[in-house]
Amino acid sequence: MLGACLDAVRASVPLVHNITNYVTVNDVANVLLACGGSPIMSDEPEDVEDITALCGGLNLNIGTLNQRSIEAMHRAGKKAAALGHPILLDPVGAGASALRTNTAVSLMQELPLTVIRGNISEIKTLALGSGTTKGVDADVADAVTEETLPQAIQFVKDFAQRSKAIIAITGAIDLVSDGTQCYVLRNGRPEMGRITGTGCQLSGLMTAFLVANPDRPLEAAAAAVATMGLAGELGWLHMAKGEGNASYRTHIIDAIYNMTGETLDKGASYELR
Amino acid sequence: MLGACLDAVRASVPLVHNITNYVTVNDVANVLLACGGSPIMSDEPEDVEDITALCGGLNLNIGTLNQRSIEAMHRAGKKAAALGHPILLDPVGAGASALRTNTAVSLMQELPLTVIRGNISEIKTLALGSGTTKGVDADVADAVTEETLPQAIQFVKDFAQRSKAIIAITGAIDLVSDGTQCYVLRNGRPEMGRITGTGCQLSGLMTAFLVANPDRPLEAAAAAVATMGLAGELGWLHMAKGEGNASYRTHIIDAIYNMTGETLDKGASYELR
Amino acid sequence: MLGACLDAVRASVPLVHNITNYVTVNDVANVLLACGGSPIMSDEPEDVEDITALCGGLNLNIGTLNQRSIEAMHRAGKKAAALGHPILLDPVGAGASALRTNTAVSLMQELPLTVIRGNISEIKTLALGSGTTKGVDADVADAVTEETLPQAIQFVKDFAQRSKAIIAITGAIDLVSDGTQCYVLRNGRPEMGRITGTGCQLSGLMTAFLVANPDRPLEAAAAAVATMGLAGELGWLHMAKGEGNASYRTHIIDAIYNMTGETLDKGASYELR
Repeated sequence: MLGACLDAVRASVPLVHNITNYVTVNDVANVLLACGGSPIMSDEPEDVEDITALCGGLNLNIGTLNQRSIEAMHRAGKKAAALGHPILLDPVGAGASALRTNTAVSLMQELPLTVIRGNISEIKTLALGSGTTKGVDADVADAVTEETLPQAIQFVKDFAQRSKAIIAITGAIDLVSDGTQCYVLRNGRPEMGRITGTGCQLSGLMTAFLVANPDRPLEAAAAAVATMGLAGELGWLHMAKGEGNASYRTHIIDAIYNMTGETLDKGASYELR
Repeated sequence: MLGACLDAVRASVPLVHNITNYVTVNDVANVLLACGGSPIMSDEPEDVEDITALCGGLNLNIGTLNQRSIEAMHRAGKKAAALGHPILLDPVGAGASALRTNTAVSLMQELPLTVIRGNISEIKTLALGSGTTKGVDADVADAVTEETLPQAIQFVKDFAQRSKAIIAITGAIDLVSDGTQCYVLRNGRPEMGRITGTGCQLSGLMTAFLVANPDRPLEAAAAAVATMGLAGELGWLHMAKGEGNASYRTHIIDAIYNMTGETLDKGASYELR
Repeated sequence: MLGACLDAVRASVPLVHNITNYVTVNDVANVLLACGGSPIMSDEPEDVEDITALCGGLNLNIGTLNQRSIEAMHRAGKKAAALGHPILLDPVGAGASALRTNTAVSLMQELPLTVIRGNISEIKTLALGSGTTKGVDADVADAVTEETLPQAIQFVKDFAQRSKAIIAITGAIDLVSDGTQCYVLRNGRPEMGRITGTGCQLSGLMTAFLVANPDRPLEAAAAAVATMGLAGELGWLHMAKGEGNASYRTHIIDAIYNMTGETLDKGASYELR
């Protein structure tokens, strides 16, 4: 079933508007091309409405936000919302600075986000910043492990219900929930954290999956997580002696380029809770 | 003859000022180094005149334009024009937004461009936006194929004459014309479209070729197109099992690094029409 | 001893705030991850104080400076200074434009820089721009060779004393001095100059080394230079037929990823003068 979400991307070549950071933007573009999508980048407020109108979905990533790109995110987001496009928010560094936290919370409040994807720390920040029941949300542990899993699943479901967005928390174990169901995914490798931008790449990829699978956003989001994680496993198999994080980065994108729906269905490791 | 244009780049190490998008800028820099040139990037209006004065040519790419970089393009362009430097415009996304179209048209009107390089859709947008005989220009098909070739050659010659720039349209078949002659080039592979920025890379490369070959800009532009296309073919020969667009990107730049004028002359596939 | 500086990086995972150019920023991030550090990028004035406060050190690189990032560098720098964090300045292009020269000089005057790292031309520009004894400084040759070495060592020692910063001049022979001692390092390969950003990568790397080795900044800076140079040598050993600068870039980062303190101690080629 997750494989069908990937096949749908390849069949429809979804065009994704990315307002994303300049650190990992090239990889985001190449990952979108690798999975069968098509990327456009634009972060000038006067430009973004036209560009987003041409696309099928919008990927907002605050990794190197500035006043101009913040304004662009709001303008593009309103346009995308008016057009019914899926919108993904990647709140990079929420919790690390007031500007990042406030920007992410403000985007969350103003836009009908389809997915919020981040690590546990970023998602906790948003849950606290946007909620009234702070104590409860803050109770979740700082890493999703087998031990903290039940608690983390409850947290992600609660926050999904409250935020009316699909919440995707990625880490050693990944969680993707729409408030009712929760995908628990166990693909990937720890070495992916030694490459810059695997999270940003996943956000771009996931937006393409959302565009190509409008009737099943939860499955689409989970399929994107599984695709990235499985690519991390398959790419690792190509690591030769002497290779490191720079080669691994290439192998992962290559693995996405070569992945079929069938490969994904065979390799995806997940359960529904 | 095209090979001599590449040899001239390696012999003279042309310094190229790039005001280009942040998606593919690293590849543009590495391609310029691969071909024997030297890249400088600067897009701050207060900085660009000094920088362009040090360089031999100017590469303007509007892929992630913003108000600051638009001003920088105009200022750098005027300085480059005053110094007699070749100026290349890559109108990324012209036609996709009003700001991109207007910026490209405005740069075309204000600056004595040496080359405008884009895909057929971007070039058609500029031809329409800048002309009075819209009906004629708009008649050209949306892809250059063997069937539409005669019509496309006429279009590119007409627009080159009218714009007083060399026009380079890249796609499955590439056309480069100064209004009188038209190079028809058939190197390259379709998989190059699955890598972000091969067009941007070509624009950087072409600017270096223009700087190093001041007396033969048409040949220089055609030689750059052939170099990129041939690198796409040679790079493909290095693709191993399991590799995808990320590895292909590396192989292409490597192929440019290792290309000699002799290799280019042997591998270039073109005719003059 | 240099190896111990690398081991300290891997043991402490220093978080480095980078305000750097968008050309090579991805490589800077991956090099920081490769050496065992952790990168954060932020160049919005409203964001940088919070971000720098989370980090252990600050890497300022003016490669694609603009008015916003210049302001961000000053604000981040003052915060880092107040917190006692090491600050590195990479004055990319100082001497190439008035804005770059003035920005670098101004940062040098306002901030208690730990290290200034650049090529001989950039460092000479700063020495002239900041000093009163111009004639003396200007006497140094434009390249550090075995012939000009004694003179260059005197220059770098003088400027280090005068600027109260460690000065690192990188080129065919690298010099790192605190005004009293001078490391003369001879690792590296000339082909590293055919990759964009090896200097920027070194600046990121060096900042991590400074953070992880607070009690021995001179050794830390020299160790970073040796790490980068040795990675250039080890990476070159992995070059296969047909590979060029794009592959070499990957091999170098991979070599850093796999380097141990022991490897560094065995491979580092230097003397103290």
